[in-house]
Amino acid sequence: MLIDRLNWRYATKKMNPDKAVPEEKIARILEAVRLAPTSSGLQQFEVIVVTNAEIREKIKAIAWNQEQVTDASHLIVFAAWDNYTADRINGMFDLVNDERGFRNEGWEAYRQMLLGTYPQRDAQTNFEHAARQAYVGLGIALTAAAFEEVDATPMEGFDPDALDAILDLRARGLRSVAIMPVGYRADEGDWLVNLKKVRRPIGEFVSRID
Amino acid sequence: MLIDRLNWRYATKKMNPDKAVPEEKIARILEAVRLAPTSSGLQQFEVIVVTNAEIREKIKAIAWNQEQVTDASHLIVFAAWDNYTADRINGMFDLVNDERGFRNEGWEAYRQMLLGTYPQRDAQTNFEHAARQAYVGLGIALTAAAFEEVDATPMEGFDPDALDAILDLRARGLRSVAIMPVGYRADEGDWLVNLKKVRRPIGEFVSRID
Repeated sequence: MLIDRLNWRYATKKMNPDKAVPEEKIARILEAVRLAPTSSGLQQFEVIVVTNAEIREKIKAIAWNQEQVTDASHLIVFAAWDNYTADRINGMFDLVNDERGFRNEGWEAYRQMLLGTYPQRDAQTNFEHAARQAYVGLGIALTAAAFEEVDATPMEGFDPDALDAILDLRARGLRSVAIMPVGYRADEGDWLVNLKKVRRPIGEFVSRID
Repeated sequence: MLIDRLNWRYATKKMNPDKAVPEEKIARILEAVRLAPTSSGLQQFEVIVVTNAEIREKIKAIAWNQEQVTDASHLIVFAAWDNYTADRINGMFDLVNDERGFRNEGWEAYRQMLLGTYPQRDAQTNFEHAARQAYVGLGIALTAAAFEEVDATPMEGFDPDALDAILDLRARGLRSVAIMPVGYRADEGDWLVNLKKVRRPIGEFVSRID
């Protein structure tokens, strides 16, 4: 079932500009991403959903003019924390304590370990670590879109600094890492839709130590 | 349905050492990972499945002695390409041509663009890019495990250099980035199993530009 959905999906090259994805499907995709596990449970990324036509035209211009950016009904931007700070770490640990209604000694020791490690590291190392977590979310988003029977295209082909400027992400301590247009494939004009999905054979992708 | 599965899963802290995951479930999880989309379709990571008890004891020792490493029935290691080389890029593009039975002019131009870009970049930049793709696979693996109703724990708490040495990954041009024990939760002894899953509210995780 999951494998059927993953075989059905593909990196859609031509979206139908006249067909919008219902908001309830978008909401379920976003909820799946929200539930993504992240390192230490920090949820070190955010998601920005862009439907605004003018903003999407600007984004297309810094994304090799790839038409899915404007033809899809929704553009989902994955933006990772630019750094780890004590405030961000404490914010998440405090939220966990609030939601669970108690403080756990082991959990508090773990908080202190992170506070003693992450904020002291260079920002780029921390950002790269946060970016990886955003890609866990991206993997789940792509799967969730396939379950909703909507098309989605994972895209890195854009200028992240320019996108950060368009969306004013740096002021929020965020850096864009990937974008995902969500929509419906066009009836024609997609060079990829009928081509075979190619992956390395399982024997070249997986090895075993038994 | 997907959301139910994601709510069911959690980062299992105590696996049942006496209950093995059937190989057909492992095969479906690995197939889902194989189908993960990756940047330019390069599949710039591999997966190593370790069941060998002796090797897993060694891994546990460089993974903060986390017991899931040995108590789970399978340990799945995600290892990213250490660099992009012309051979690796050509290998994937040639495979695509072979499988599809024709050469596509646009696809060949794209190959040349990658060949003119990636191999010239520093290895660390290339590795970080490959590592992000492995995390797409990790996100899908966690989802696939949840669909199989088996427990899985995404883990970064290990010494990657030591793991690379144990599995001799560097000789294969690979670097470990994450590990995922797969098994069944123990009946007791897991401090996390009954605690609420905590995520930031959707309004603090998602913003919109409409």
